[in-house]
Amino acid sequence: MADREKPADAQGDAPLPKLPQRGLTLRMLGDRLGLSTATISLALRDSPLVAEQTRIRVRALADEIGYVANRSAASLRTARTNMVGVVVHDVVNPYFAEIFRALEAELNAQSLAIMICNHADDVRRQRTFVETLMQHRADGLIMCPSVGTEPAEVLRVARSGLPLVMICRDIGEIGVPVVRGDDFAGALALTRHLIERGHRRIAFVGGRRQTSAGRERHAGYVAAHAEAGIEIDPALDVPEAMTQRAGRDAVAGLLALSRRPTAIFGFNDLVALGLMSALRRHGIEPGRDIAVAGYDNTDGAAWTTPALTSVDNVPGPIGATAAALLRDQIAGLPVRTERILIAPELIVRESTRPN
Amino acid sequence: MADREKPADAQGDAPLPKLPQRGLTLRMLGDRLGLSTATISLALRDSPLVAEQTRIRVRALADEIGYVANRSAASLRTARTNMVGVVVHDVVNPYFAEIFRALEAELNAQSLAIMICNHADDVRRQRTFVETLMQHRADGLIMCPSVGTEPAEVLRVARSGLPLVMICRDIGEIGVPVVRGDDFAGALALTRHLIERGHRRIAFVGGRRQTSAGRERHAGYVAAHAEAGIEIDPALDVPEAMTQRAGRDAVAGLLALSRRPTAIFGFNDLVALGLMSALRRHGIEPGRDIAVAGYDNTDGAAWTTPALTSVDNVPGPIGATAAALLRDQIAGLPVRTERILIAPELIVRESTRPN
Repeated sequence: MADREKPADAQGDAPLPKLPQRGLTLRMLGDRLGLSTATISLALRDSPLVAEQTRIRVRALADEIGYVANRSAASLRTARTNMVGVVVHDVVNPYFAEIFRALEAELNAQSLAIMICNHADDVRRQRTFVETLMQHRADGLIMCPSVGTEPAEVLRVARSGLPLVMICRDIGEIGVPVVRGDDFAGALALTRHLIERGHRRIAFVGGRRQTSAGRERHAGYVAAHAEAGIEIDPALDVPEAMTQRAGRDAVAGLLALSRRPTAIFGFNDLVALGLMSALRRHGIEPGRDIAVAGYDNTDGAAWTTPALTSVDNVPGPIGATAAALLRDQIAGLPVRTERILIAPELIVRESTRPN
Repeated sequence: MADREKPADAQGDAPLPKLPQRGLTLRMLGDRLGLSTATISLALRDSPLVAEQTRIRVRALADEIGYVANRSAASLRTARTNMVGVVVHDVVNPYFAEIFRALEAELNAQSLAIMICNHADDVRRQRTFVETLMQHRADGLIMCPSVGTEPAEVLRVARSGLPLVMICRDIGEIGVPVVRGDDFAGALALTRHLIERGHRRIAFVGGRRQTSAGRERHAGYVAAHAEAGIEIDPALDVPEAMTQRAGRDAVAGLLALSRRPTAIFGFNDLVALGLMSALRRHGIEPGRDIAVAGYDNTDGAAWTTPALTSVDNVPGPIGATAAALLRDQIAGLPVRTERILIAPELIVRESTRPN
């Protein structure tokens, strides 16, 4: 975890440049309401220094005359646009909900516009979003990079001066801060657990191997087999699945094998849930007839039937650490640029009972 | 559904204003690569009129010299920022995933930066996001309004000239386009189905009654009881739940009633899934011991055990219609401002077998 002091408030005390138009509007509002321009300014920023009743009056009149705070003028003082982008590949994955929650809490979502982009592992979509944020001088960007993201592309963003933190996936040590769970360690622990429970034919379903998460979880699965002296049947290695639907779709192929797996490691909980529902439709009861495990330990994992063995992939610490690294960059402080790996935790439940 | 011609491309043929700095950079790129400035300009916009190989060369050199297209200059010609905001209360609900997919397909997510805001029914978060989009002159906004959204607030956005479409919830007929499923009709059909199956004690769990969706689904539930002459026990009416967790949390209270429900209508599929998992933990098997139904017919509904009865809430048509209404506004065409209600469809599955 990052180990440093919290930054002092970065707003300097530079004198406010003369902005006649904005000043005039504030004065006009002040005259109409019998308040000082300073009070009007604070009220428009929803400052608790101004009584709630007064803020409501100011806002009402400002709305009436169609006043929109001139953010680019205001930003001459603070050099902020109060806009932060968050780029992920699957906004619907509940794992990201936990990360968003941690980010939002740290970044104060009520006063900062957090803009989420669902790039769906399409590097062009990611590029469009990132370019737009750069052109509009966003305060920062938190990015789980798409498949196909080149280091040059990320370095270009970093060199442009846009504060940047990568999460969950990385594309090598390129001098940009990265915070993610230790995918290798998590997958190693989970696969060892399955082997300890007597399994010798363990399928690995899902994960994009062009991403660090896909590669590292797969490497952990492979390493656990190697240390136990078990050879992996290549037919049990089914890459790409990332969703419930893809998990369901993988089941028919696994069941068609002459030698079926006795356990399945789903790349994430969504895949594992998909596997469980489709197995059951085929008359194979997860947890009784076959072991199934997931990864991420999302909200519903403890509540499925059977309760799902999974790996807690620490979304809270990842979100909080990423937010702190972003805030430090915005404040102009130096930040760690090496990879920050956070240890995940294996959570054993009913779905991986002994074989 | 909206019934009109697709708009012609709205980009006029106004002469390009003189932009010396931009022009110089284009010329410099052109000189270095032996290409015309027009070709450079097209290449930077990733136009298919320029050979892929050439586009790669241009992009590489532009990256090398740190060229970022000056979007505000470019927008003098097209008056576009290629930025569209989408505001919803729960980005993780798979129902919104279907809406996003339809929006993205219609709006061409590869060339348009679609920025999602998760307002979590906090009107201040919504306001921060909307203000930021207005200040940066976004091309449009699609909004599922937060609890607490005042008509004045939405009208102010509309009057500012920002193209605006509301989806899924509305705040009354205020002259702003709205597209949503007919929540009253869907809830009426589902409750009638439960009554036809012999249920007389039907709980309604979830929905925020400060939203049109919460009110209308509840009204459909009430109307179906009224026409069947069944009085509703107020203890069976449990508002507010919106998530799996909230659905799980509602179960203990329902089971503590001296007269338990024989069926439960979950406000959405997430609530219904939460209800089913917690009921099972209490030894009550959904579909056998108690009927459970959801709303939205999300991806997993057909695959739960038992398969979930739900209401298809037409996310595809809602997303496509909203995108079309937004595109028309961006193109300066007049659009329908009355409420567009799309008929939902009851999908009966195993979870509501006869009592």
